[in-house]
Amino acid sequence: MQRIVVLAGGIGGARFLRGLKSAVPDAEITVIGNTGDDIHLFGLKVCPDLDTVMYTLGGGIHEEQGWGRKDESFAVKEELAAYGVGPEWFGLGDRDFATHIVRTQMIAAGYSLSDVTEALCARWQPGVRLLPMTDDRVETHVLIDDPDSKEGRRAVHFQEYWVRLRASVDAQAVVPVGADSAKPAPGVLDAISEADVILFPPSNPVVSVGTILAVPGMREAIAEAGVPVVGLSPIVGDAPVRGMADKVLAAVGVESTAAAVAQHYGSGLLDGWLVDTVDADSVRAVEEAGIRCRAVPLMMTGTEATAAMAREALALAGEVQA
Amino acid sequence: MQRIVVLAGGIGGARFLRGLKSAVPDAEITVIGNTGDDIHLFGLKVCPDLDTVMYTLGGGIHEEQGWGRKDESFAVKEELAAYGVGPEWFGLGDRDFATHIVRTQMIAAGYSLSDVTEALCARWQPGVRLLPMTDDRVETHVLIDDPDSKEGRRAVHFQEYWVRLRASVDAQAVVPVGADSAKPAPGVLDAISEADVILFPPSNPVVSVGTILAVPGMREAIAEAGVPVVGLSPIVGDAPVRGMADKVLAAVGVESTAAAVAQHYGSGLLDGWLVDTVDADSVRAVEEAGIRCRAVPLMMTGTEATAAMAREALALAGEVQA
Repeated sequence: MQRIVVLAGGIGGARFLRGLKSAVPDAEITVIGNTGDDIHLFGLKVCPDLDTVMYTLGGGIHEEQGWGRKDESFAVKEELAAYGVGPEWFGLGDRDFATHIVRTQMIAAGYSLSDVTEALCARWQPGVRLLPMTDDRVETHVLIDDPDSKEGRRAVHFQEYWVRLRASVDAQAVVPVGADSAKPAPGVLDAISEADVILFPPSNPVVSVGTILAVPGMREAIAEAGVPVVGLSPIVGDAPVRGMADKVLAAVGVESTAAAVAQHYGSGLLDGWLVDTVDADSVRAVEEAGIRCRAVPLMMTGTEATAAMAREALALAGEVQA
Repeated sequence: MQRIVVLAGGIGGARFLRGLKSAVPDAEITVIGNTGDDIHLFGLKVCPDLDTVMYTLGGGIHEEQGWGRKDESFAVKEELAAYGVGPEWFGLGDRDFATHIVRTQMIAAGYSLSDVTEALCARWQPGVRLLPMTDDRVETHVLIDDPDSKEGRRAVHFQEYWVRLRASVDAQAVVPVGADSAKPAPGVLDAISEADVILFPPSNPVVSVGTILAVPGMREAIAEAGVPVVGLSPIVGDAPVRGMADKVLAAVGVESTAAAVAQHYGSGLLDGWLVDTVDADSVRAVEEAGIRCRAVPLMMTGTEATAAMAREALALAGEVQA
């Protein structure tokens, strides 16, 4: 049985995983989920990326939106607003609240985030093993200009940057606070060392995959696993397929092009890279950087199109291994 | 301006207060609320009696039910059940959840229950000053027979006895755990000492008013306030008007009659007592116990009927003072 490890952020990672499961239903898939965008709201621990993966693969996701629950209502949020308790810019629905209540209660009772994630997945049966990248607290902060502050800039939580500000201001830096002392969650390094192939889905290279790689030992384990590592570009035609990846790429000095992202990961980590057919021009630059590259359709317009992308990624993995 | 202190439980106390406000709209009413039935559920602090008073006087109550919010939905509870997380027997609605989330978040941030109650009331504007009896944790437990346990009996939380078991088994004892070391909340003793009259609404004499009186200093402050203390019988025609007060009265060795409840409070505490007209026979026994007594209609069938009860209570207070 093929063992596949996938480093996943939220919507992009979750949708890719659905295609991957469809492409190789018999594979044993371990997902290492980003927890850098976790946030404490209303005294509850919210894990947006883990939940997006869990809901998407478990059939509970709001399909059009890509995050949150289908058939959702917002009575709790309305009431919190009536009490003057915010933030109002973060859309927590009633069904979603229950997940955070269960998680927070388990964490308070002494369970680790890994334990909690396993318990929540016992209900959702996502068909993959979903592991948080770490059980330690890591919180991605974004440094933005703030003329009103003494230093001229201030740090905001990633969710505030992404959801409230909609990345409308430039990111000066992206800092995964706490990552330097975080340890990979139980099972993560074993899954990497036992993998037959490692995939980077078209997730955000900075705040999703980048945060996972910032956990000490993670990058080294992947580089030293001795198996093909293949990524799919989240940038198509010089623009992010979704989200505002260009803003955070700029913060780390990387151009928003399919080739630049591959070079950012580097040949020390990546063996193969898929770019969209509209970016076929960039194949040569990527290959010159020592990374095998192919141009294939990369728009996740549906499960079949996404499954085809997954098959291409696995084919490229086979090719670099040969 | 007349200053009135009312010791209140949940539904009975809340409905009486609505009548009292209607009867004397200009009075300054301080409510000392029972917190012995508070319970921690799903990691959240739930205060059923305080909330019933707040929602009832603030216009948010589910009228027919007497507790919980009107226009309520139950998505969070459904989801918690889908995760296998209970208890399912306690009916927490989505709107109600928001109150407990705000309260729990404030408590975790270091605020006292008094602070929290004031903050919640800033939204609801109940038109009374609502004070918890104490900021300390008090939890009413009920001792019931349990043939399966080694001791032959076990203690359950009052809510489990009342809501899950519906008082269907005998209560051997009622214990307000923590009451012996609890202190009256800020403002409680001052309100009592500055009161012109103190009222016991037709609330449960054991688990509502009795729990409030169990806080050290409370009973003495009321007895020594030097103002009329008048109660209204929650027992009409030898049966509780609502709820299952007879079960917990039996646990403290008190008959379920209007006269027996008055004698249970005693003339050291009570100056006046109202019984229902169907219990006119018991007036003499109450007066022989040194408590002025009148028989008046005591069914809270609506705000006007309840306002009339409040006026009778205040009239009796004037009479005992004269």
